[in-house]
Amino acid sequence: LTVKFNIAGKTVTICGIAKGAGMIAPDMATMLCFILTDANISQAALRKALDIANQRTFNCITVDGCMSTNDSIIILANGSCGCRLIDKEKNFSVFVSALSHVCDELAKMIVRDGEGATKFIKITVREAKSFQEARKIALNIANSSLFKTAMYGENSNFGRIVAAVGASGVAVKEQNLKIRVSPLRKREISIKVLIGRGNSQAVIYTSDLTPDYVKINAEYN
Amino acid sequence: LTVKFNIAGKTVTICGIAKGAGMIAPDMATMLCFILTDANISQAALRKALDIANQRTFNCITVDGCMSTNDSIIILANGSCGCRLIDKEKNFSVFVSALSHVCDELAKMIVRDGEGATKFIKITVREAKSFQEARKIALNIANSSLFKTAMYGENSNFGRIVAAVGASGVAVKEQNLKIRVSPLRKREISIKVLIGRGNSQAVIYTSDLTPDYVKINAEYN
Repeated sequence: LTVKFNIAGKTVTICGIAKGAGMIAPDMATMLCFILTDANISQAALRKALDIANQRTFNCITVDGCMSTNDSIIILANGSCGCRLIDKEKNFSVFVSALSHVCDELAKMIVRDGEGATKFIKITVREAKSFQEARKIALNIANSSLFKTAMYGENSNFGRIVAAVGASGVAVKEQNLKIRVSPLRKREISIKVLIGRGNSQAVIYTSDLTPDYVKINAEYN
Repeated sequence: LTVKFNIAGKTVTICGIAKGAGMIAPDMATMLCFILTDANISQAALRKALDIANQRTFNCITVDGCMSTNDSIIILANGSCGCRLIDKEKNFSVFVSALSHVCDELAKMIVRDGEGATKFIKITVREAKSFQEARKIALNIANSSLFKTAMYGENSNFGRIVAAVGASGVAVKEQNLKIRVSPLRKREISIKVLIGRGNSQAVIYTSDLTPDYVKINAEYN
């Protein structure tokens, strides 16, 4: 994936390559991601930009809830585009925004490529007290085998979403909980969960749990 | 399940009935358990005995890692056996021991009855700093989809056990980790994990993840 953007008249390019797609869970998984850019950027700014981009992209996907031992994301910048220096004060947000876009698209590709997956599911938790709280609930839904099998079966058993919210450990009141689910027949499904506790949100991408996932991983040695 | 034991010459009976077997995870699941006894026991002692028995039996099983909303364990004692009073000081340990046996056997029955299960797996984590630490690691293994599918496939991919130990958050050193696995062809499998950190242990019972589990839960509405 390649994106191009502009800093003071100079075109900056970011190119990213990633590999999945079993053993995928937040905190990085058996995932290798290489990002190359010709941006002229300080090491400190590059590191911070990658941390920011990673937190809400690769660290917000889960295929099977299994964290791996050798996830890596590597970014290299050589400055050859000749743009003005990017550091933490100057031109930083435009770079972070482009880099986040690359990471987000690659993260979605990994989930779409998930072992045995037939569905791509976007889970948005809104009205949380913090990003961490919203992410915790969204991940608890995304990693629930009952939720994932229901998505595979196009089975509108929303009780399983409610149960996963309840089991997350966050004190959500039933009367404040709202759940919206897009049509399950489609390949791309959107789940929105509003919990009535605050103003923060998180988005998690995940896939369904299918007989093929079980077969692939029962046979692989 | 019924057990009988003796307090000062009187026979005490404990009878337990339980129902599983999807949505089973620690903290109780869609599980209903009723235990009846003719023991002559104070309410405080009965409550404490059940807490103790429950902690290492029903709260140490997982079929699919999905906690349910309506797990219940109910114990009733009517005192009709005519034994001496059991309270927290007198005759308590013999009652707890018999009750723990009833709970342990019922908990194992629930796992054996797990949706789609073809294997019964006992995971023992030893040499932990505390019971809680050992249980955390054992549960992380038991709830790993990659571990569960490997068990279904009789696939000796022990790297998945090592990865689940590593992902548990407990700082286990590689050189102190020992893993022993009984023959995978059998219906009952024993996994022992020694982590070289202390003297505590925990035992978790679980089942494998099979295409039938996915089918049952994709179709059920």
